[in-house]
Amino acid sequence: MAQRIQGVLSPVVTPFKRDLSPDPERYVRHCKWLLDHGCAGLAVFGTNSEANSLSVDERMLLLEALVQAGVPAAKLMPGTGMCALTDSVRLTAHAVTLGCAGVLMLPPFYYKGVSEAGLYRSFSELIERVGDARLQLYLYHIPPVSQVPITPALIERLLKAYPESVAGLKDSSGDWNNTKAVLDGFASSGFDVFAGSEVFLLANLRGGGKGCITATGNVNPEAIDRVYQNWRAPEADALQAGISATRDLLQNYPMIPALKAMIAHWGGDPDWATMRPPLVELTAERQRSLLAELDSAGFDMPGLAAR
Amino acid sequence: MAQRIQGVLSPVVTPFKRDLSPDPERYVRHCKWLLDHGCAGLAVFGTNSEANSLSVDERMLLLEALVQAGVPAAKLMPGTGMCALTDSVRLTAHAVTLGCAGVLMLPPFYYKGVSEAGLYRSFSELIERVGDARLQLYLYHIPPVSQVPITPALIERLLKAYPESVAGLKDSSGDWNNTKAVLDGFASSGFDVFAGSEVFLLANLRGGGKGCITATGNVNPEAIDRVYQNWRAPEADALQAGISATRDLLQNYPMIPALKAMIAHWGGDPDWATMRPPLVELTAERQRSLLAELDSAGFDMPGLAAR
Repeated sequence: MAQRIQGVLSPVVTPFKRDLSPDPERYVRHCKWLLDHGCAGLAVFGTNSEANSLSVDERMLLLEALVQAGVPAAKLMPGTGMCALTDSVRLTAHAVTLGCAGVLMLPPFYYKGVSEAGLYRSFSELIERVGDARLQLYLYHIPPVSQVPITPALIERLLKAYPESVAGLKDSSGDWNNTKAVLDGFASSGFDVFAGSEVFLLANLRGGGKGCITATGNVNPEAIDRVYQNWRAPEADALQAGISATRDLLQNYPMIPALKAMIAHWGGDPDWATMRPPLVELTAERQRSLLAELDSAGFDMPGLAAR
Repeated sequence: MAQRIQGVLSPVVTPFKRDLSPDPERYVRHCKWLLDHGCAGLAVFGTNSEANSLSVDERMLLLEALVQAGVPAAKLMPGTGMCALTDSVRLTAHAVTLGCAGVLMLPPFYYKGVSEAGLYRSFSELIERVGDARLQLYLYHIPPVSQVPITPALIERLLKAYPESVAGLKDSSGDWNNTKAVLDGFASSGFDVFAGSEVFLLANLRGGGKGCITATGNVNPEAIDRVYQNWRAPEADALQAGISATRDLLQNYPMIPALKAMIAHWGGDPDWATMRPPLVELTAERQRSLLAELDSAGFDMPGLAAR
């Protein structure tokens, strides 16, 4: 088996044309910029990608566009967890066939309060139906949004049944105690834990984790990667403080439209700010305020406009 | 415009074969039984239908199977609200083209805390894209599951912009005060309110509502319809008490597997109990207990086994 992906991954924001259809051209350009600026991989079709506002076919077309444009599939970890088992199987099989490094799987998230047995059966049916030894499955724990958690008991059961396929977890709970519990319970058995925010990157690496998959990876990948590259160095804590400060600034804005507004601004490409409903663009006032704050902080996205 | 649908609607449970694929044959049979036993309409692909565990294509095939088997499209109100606008448009246009009485639309439910403007834009884009005067859109308010509410302010805005298309609402909040507020605010302007449980059927009719769309409509449609047919009669309260008692009994069990276990039992067809993950069947013990309670209460599903 190939070396598993590690480091900083970006849940790539998805550009839309004015008619709200996905824009493969802008998408490929942004993905290449990210890989050139510190991202070890791309967790395309995450929460920050508005992926849950895309149909299965729209995701498949975008993924194929990336691979055809020369983005290495070995750097891709698409989100493939849908409400319907049949959709998850279709997307996952497609990603595996394209040679993706792994898939990041939400649990089925419509029904709430579902049993551990039911969630186990969802993932187990998926793995059996995809039926491909290349599958590397990363569980996606994001209870503030999905409302359906991935518990340590579920991880244990899945790891025991499918040790070759169940590769790790992204923890977007925002709760370091949970990340710590998962690291302590499973990291030593080769289960790769990614923090869901760069705020926890250094702590996660020190605890045996493998990196982070973070919204702000879309706009600040070099600085975040610097923490990853230097996490054993004396300056690690100072570097971490720098990226945490940028994150703190962004936390005052709705994250996804803020990221898009930043790419629109530094890329000199206003249409990038377009959101698909139910999410909406920043108001002009909030956008001005965000950019002013970032300017004051000396923030930049080098090389974005040149493309 | 044709008379709008009124009375008791069942969010039809979806039968699966042993391989977990939807079973059109059992589905058609159950739909016809429901229409022969008190249902004025069928809200296929609701929460109780495990519809959110079905792909778009699976829903379309089942809907076509019903119409081809002679179930009148004028009695169908399929659920067509998905996370992705493009999926909602595809399902809704399909339903309208088949001649369905209406569609019951969940808001996009992955992203939480979305703005009223974003939800308005979702529904408005949908209506514009479907672009068909036959569309009768029923909003689906079920915050305990979707976590994304349909507020009175949103209803008002949609009704003002699309008075011909926005036909009503199913209130599954479980909160009578909310149903009352929607009735008081909009029923007199021709907005058809359906209670999400028969527990509120009589109160809803007295408040100007048009019926109910209720899980237990799958198993107890005749008795519920008797309340609808006799709501102005002296015995209305006694009839309401009877159906509320049956509902109370069922509330002690996970609703969807309980409904399927009942159809399996009274239909003499054990495979009907099959659930698609993430939901699971009742344990054998809970199933025995449910059926024993129902037997003691004198419950029956007449004519189910004969089919």
